[in-house]
Amino acid sequence: MLSGVYRNPTTIFFGRGVELTVGEEVKKYSKKILLHYGGESFKKYGLYEKVANSLKSSGIEFIELGGVKSNPEAGLIYEGINICRKEKIDFILAVGGGSVIDSAKTVGIGVPYEGDFIDFFNKKQIPQKSLKIGTILTVPGSGSESSDGAVITNERVKVKYDCGSPVMYPVFSMLNPEITFTVPRQHTFCGIVDAITHVLERYFSNTAYVDCSDRICEGLVKTLMKYALLVDKEPDNYEVRAEIMWGCKLAHDNTAGFGRKQDWASHKISHEIGSRYAVAHGAILAVIFPAWMKYVYKTNEQIFLQFANRVFDIEKGALENSQAILVAIDKFQLFLKAIGMPSTLQEIGLINKTEFADIANNCVSVMPSGTIGNFVRLSTQDIELILNSCF
Amino acid sequence: MLSGVYRNPTTIFFGRGVELTVGEEVKKYSKKILLHYGGESFKKYGLYEKVANSLKSSGIEFIELGGVKSNPEAGLIYEGINICRKEKIDFILAVGGGSVIDSAKTVGIGVPYEGDFIDFFNKKQIPQKSLKIGTILTVPGSGSESSDGAVITNERVKVKYDCGSPVMYPVFSMLNPEITFTVPRQHTFCGIVDAITHVLERYFSNTAYVDCSDRICEGLVKTLMKYALLVDKEPDNYEVRAEIMWGCKLAHDNTAGFGRKQDWASHKISHEIGSRYAVAHGAILAVIFPAWMKYVYKTNEQIFLQFANRVFDIEKGALENSQAILVAIDKFQLFLKAIGMPSTLQEIGLINKTEFADIANNCVSVMPSGTIGNFVRLSTQDIELILNSCF
Repeated sequence: MLSGVYRNPTTIFFGRGVELTVGEEVKKYSKKILLHYGGESFKKYGLYEKVANSLKSSGIEFIELGGVKSNPEAGLIYEGINICRKEKIDFILAVGGGSVIDSAKTVGIGVPYEGDFIDFFNKKQIPQKSLKIGTILTVPGSGSESSDGAVITNERVKVKYDCGSPVMYPVFSMLNPEITFTVPRQHTFCGIVDAITHVLERYFSNTAYVDCSDRICEGLVKTLMKYALLVDKEPDNYEVRAEIMWGCKLAHDNTAGFGRKQDWASHKISHEIGSRYAVAHGAILAVIFPAWMKYVYKTNEQIFLQFANRVFDIEKGALENSQAILVAIDKFQLFLKAIGMPSTLQEIGLINKTEFADIANNCVSVMPSGTIGNFVRLSTQDIELILNSCF
Repeated sequence: MLSGVYRNPTTIFFGRGVELTVGEEVKKYSKKILLHYGGESFKKYGLYEKVANSLKSSGIEFIELGGVKSNPEAGLIYEGINICRKEKIDFILAVGGGSVIDSAKTVGIGVPYEGDFIDFFNKKQIPQKSLKIGTILTVPGSGSESSDGAVITNERVKVKYDCGSPVMYPVFSMLNPEITFTVPRQHTFCGIVDAITHVLERYFSNTAYVDCSDRICEGLVKTLMKYALLVDKEPDNYEVRAEIMWGCKLAHDNTAGFGRKQDWASHKISHEIGSRYAVAHGAILAVIFPAWMKYVYKTNEQIFLQFANRVFDIEKGALENSQAILVAIDKFQLFLKAIGMPSTLQEIGLINKTEFADIANNCVSVMPSGTIGNFVRLSTQDIELILNSCF
């Protein structure tokens, strides 16, 4: 187990109607806030009125900034920063999924920073200060509701990149599973795939003596797969939605990953593809992650055999090692197929192999080592081979 | 899954040598603190010098209050409160196991409270304010390093009771597994048993749709049992001690219990016995918890069958339900025996059955329902039957 600092400071209000108390909660931090959101779904199902009324009845003044897109863009973030500075706003309430929360987090670190917030994503600076952030989560998956990171797209230079700092944890997040009843099927599943890969990026590790978190990871993956299949049949079942919402939160609050050397190469590759194609992050991961698994498993067969045994109940010793592992990966891909995920790059619009070299180069461009990942360090050649394998 | 508020705000510094930075960390909160500890072990193995030097080199003034006993007593807590008030101290650094941390937490809530802090433990008041608490953990098990509760003994009236409030979370806790190399075998095991029962008090629940936390609970119990057996052979193995320390933390930070109706009857009975007999809390639980399991399992065989299957690998359907459950409980008791735990009340000094009625009455005395527990509500008669069964 590796040394480190474990933090999990976001207070979670979980259950029916929690969003009705948002004004009361915000009041503890601020009297004038930015209300940040995406688009129609916030206003369509009555959530907007509930939030606005709660804020008003607690005497909170709020300025609205909607329009966050699926891969949150820098342009709107600059706008948010300007509004907060001009209006002397010290708190942002994000209502939405990961994109809205990430956009809010970036506005939050951008406001007190004198330079261009892009410096944080180029790793030139680490955020030292942030406005306080609260969230009402509407689409589970990203885990951004209780993580210290954000991923944004710089639409001008077509780059999608991430940034993380302890100052970026939301102070609170409100999770009402009922709000997720209306999330479209595809978004629900993409969120779950994102969450499962958040666990697996942590799980496939060469760090020894991490039994507690091995078990937590396996439990989360099994549970998220189980409930993904259930929610398809019962999208309005509160309990099913609750387990998904809670599982997605646990998948990324780092309880499952503390003390482990984590990988994150598949996320890096997926972000690079996501900066070029307007496809949901989870769908890209559904293509890349299994391909990554097949490419790297020989490096540490033990952890993959454990995965096969504990997650997919493949009996120890029943099959030859490689075979057992490949059967497990196949089962994982069958699950992804069952929830409608793509399995090839062509299905997500990447139909030209000539792009592979460029994607691979961009993945490693800011890495001093010229590689990505930790379970296996992937060179540009490795990345191209992985991309080829899912073409 | 039940609605509720999830908090886990204590920052954990984990790894070799973390205690050497304690001065630097404390400096963020205070310049004058109470250094609270137990006895000889703190001074015996060089930890005292490390802590004192770190505090001094960060310019922190500290007043010492040692002498916390295994079941922390009210007398010393009053003394701590007086010192903090007189010296205008606003931070307490607890160096020790659960008893020291619980004593520090109680001083912390006692200082800003005008009445007698016993009101909090009698449930007349809920703590609204506390001095800030930091800890250096020396004995894993209680989970107090990142929990919101404390258990103390009122030696005058021979009562052991608990109290909890969100203001009681330590702001940080430092966990260096090396410090635990010198913890005596029996204390190590009592801590692990305490942690395992912290998980099981949450696990045996009638709440449905709690798969994520079911799996987390099972994983923690399996891991803690595995490492308990390993640490006996290798008390100086850092990695083994690290898994125990981390597992004990996770067992009680409520990640494993959120959304579940929890039980805690066995803890209540064990505290009542602990107020009468100077026996380690974990050793008492080792007697009471399996007896409780046998007494209540018929109420919800499904969760006990799941326990048998997932924790003790008893194949589903291989045995008749009751038999499978009883085999699992037997296996759990065999584990407890293997690490030297007692299995009868006589072994912990309770040799007089005439005390049973008194113990049972005291357990329910502050409960409006006249019962304890939630999985099954236990009356005084139930408690007496459980006590009888382990005599």
